[in-house]
Amino acid sequence: MKAARFHQRGDVRIEDVPEPSIRPGAVKIKIEWCGICGTDLHEYLHGPIFCPTPHEPHPLTQETSPVVLGHEFVGTLVELGADVKGLNLGERVTVEPRIVCGTCPPCTAGHHNSCQQAATIGLAGGGGGLAEYVVVDRHLVYSLGDLPSQVGALVEPLSVAHHAVGRAGMAPGDNAVVFGAGPIGLLITAVLKATGAAHVTVVEPSAARRQRALGAGADVILDPRNENVDERIQELTGGTGADVAFECAGANAALASCVNAVKARGTVVNVAIWGHPATLDMLPIVLKEVRLVGTICYAGDHQPVIDLLRKGKLSVEQFITKRIDLDDLIAEGFQALVDGTGDQVKILVRPR
Amino acid sequence: MKAARFHQRGDVRIEDVPEPSIRPGAVKIKIEWCGICGTDLHEYLHGPIFCPTPHEPHPLTQETSPVVLGHEFVGTLVELGADVKGLNLGERVTVEPRIVCGTCPPCTAGHHNSCQQAATIGLAGGGGGLAEYVVVDRHLVYSLGDLPSQVGALVEPLSVAHHAVGRAGMAPGDNAVVFGAGPIGLLITAVLKATGAAHVTVVEPSAARRQRALGAGADVILDPRNENVDERIQELTGGTGADVAFECAGANAALASCVNAVKARGTVVNVAIWGHPATLDMLPIVLKEVRLVGTICYAGDHQPVIDLLRKGKLSVEQFITKRIDLDDLIAEGFQALVDGTGDQVKILVRPR
Repeated sequence: MKAARFHQRGDVRIEDVPEPSIRPGAVKIKIEWCGICGTDLHEYLHGPIFCPTPHEPHPLTQETSPVVLGHEFVGTLVELGADVKGLNLGERVTVEPRIVCGTCPPCTAGHHNSCQQAATIGLAGGGGGLAEYVVVDRHLVYSLGDLPSQVGALVEPLSVAHHAVGRAGMAPGDNAVVFGAGPIGLLITAVLKATGAAHVTVVEPSAARRQRALGAGADVILDPRNENVDERIQELTGGTGADVAFECAGANAALASCVNAVKARGTVVNVAIWGHPATLDMLPIVLKEVRLVGTICYAGDHQPVIDLLRKGKLSVEQFITKRIDLDDLIAEGFQALVDGTGDQVKILVRPR
Repeated sequence: MKAARFHQRGDVRIEDVPEPSIRPGAVKIKIEWCGICGTDLHEYLHGPIFCPTPHEPHPLTQETSPVVLGHEFVGTLVELGADVKGLNLGERVTVEPRIVCGTCPPCTAGHHNSCQQAATIGLAGGGGGLAEYVVVDRHLVYSLGDLPSQVGALVEPLSVAHHAVGRAGMAPGDNAVVFGAGPIGLLITAVLKATGAAHVTVVEPSAARRQRALGAGADVILDPRNENVDERIQELTGGTGADVAFECAGANAALASCVNAVKARGTVVNVAIWGHPATLDMLPIVLKEVRLVGTICYAGDHQPVIDLLRKGKLSVEQFITKRIDLDDLIAEGFQALVDGTGDQVKILVRPR
């Protein structure tokens, strides 16, 4: 079958690989669509990060590079392994693409998203969605019901956003500020509005992304290059400060503004994967008793996201900005994201 | 009366000032003892920080420097203002030395310890404990009951420690790591043991302070210059990580070790007032979903601390390392702390 495989930095190949075989407790999915994640692009440009090297197998998948890429995928069930229950052939599904050890302290405590060895399917082995077929364990599979497949391809990144919002511990009527309107910042904005946030301010320097934030439901959108963000947020919140701020930029200025934005005992959720250590003034964290929390992946978020989508609470087709064939992954996918000025949000790839 | 007043950096004078007059709703206290706080020393060495300048009055006290120093004090009630109820002349008391505006957003939300204008009595005006007398509002006064006065002088810093422990949101049986065994780190250790922490590890480079940590009740004491703290904490917690870590050092290495020390979804409480921006690797905060919280002063902590002391749950006389006269404040107090190698914890001053 055709698949995109990561070999090494700058070397992702569309090539012919053996079709994965069904196994007990697993299902075989014929891929319809797979979204490109920023993580895929990071592997291509700077990897291997989450991909294994050619020499050291990942402890859970036992695979070395080359590995198949793609973890935001939907498809149709074409084969069910022995002992698989509650799913039917022909059903359209999406997948929580995380293999965890089940035995490390975070796993034992029920925090599988912080598994010390976790492998993401489509990065660390186990196949991937940038291919014609994938075989995954049944417990990772979620039925799409009547959701369009292309919408289903957004369930995985929406689950990241849903989990980040959950980590904030918001109360009904709370307001929020989102710093950075890349794909995850936009989806967090959409989830915030879908789950009852009273007011969402988005801060984003790119004009194209500010436009997208409007579609995501942002109530106010600020350009940090032309406005005093700290002052504007105080104005918008009557001098109290925001209940919650989300750092989705991975930048010192955004993190500082998050801390400045929130009220006394407010919460800053760090969503970004930083490429460098942060420089952080601790004094406002101390004086306002700010709570800064991390968030990673998801933990039981896929079904609530599918439910929100099926109830029409989330409108996410607007974030699908391009549809390409797998053969064009590098030129039309990765390169478009590298060259873009924030005009692309989610590029979907079909395996042909 | 005799009082120590801050004039400017490096200029604290023991001088004669008018005795404060009683006013309605307030009490006049004849000071017995007043502890020297690190904050007093910072004002002397690097101020004005919390003290007003000679030119700009503090918005709540309307005072400019010189101001009387000292906010960790006990004494005897010698005069009661009109409308003061529930206190008797001759009673020994301590004071929560915070004047707040009552109208800013944190105050309105009930978080007076984060008041945007807060004045600490003994730093920002309103008199202070490094003097013969002070007059303070009745609602700031707490009776010592049968507690020794010198122990009562530790109620204020113990309340800082008690509030920091409260911010951690610990459950019964949780364990903790305290980075830095200066006065507040030691008192946090003592409060942790008094309030049910199952196991407390203290990390401290100074030999004198490590010895004090033993008296404070630490179960294990680590020297970061001779041991791999990160590895030792993982060993001590069976590879799980600590439930809570307290940063009482204001140092990048300690903050990084705090984040490394805690379990998935563990809590780091930043207690230190940092003199410079922190450099912080966000990745472990993200991957373990760590919660980093600030803590400042106290909010309803004085009475619980007095209750713990009266029940014999806290043994704090050991932390009083020197008793001096007010006339010797600079030479025997401030200078002893500057020159010391961690041998001094709390120096108490009597006004003579």
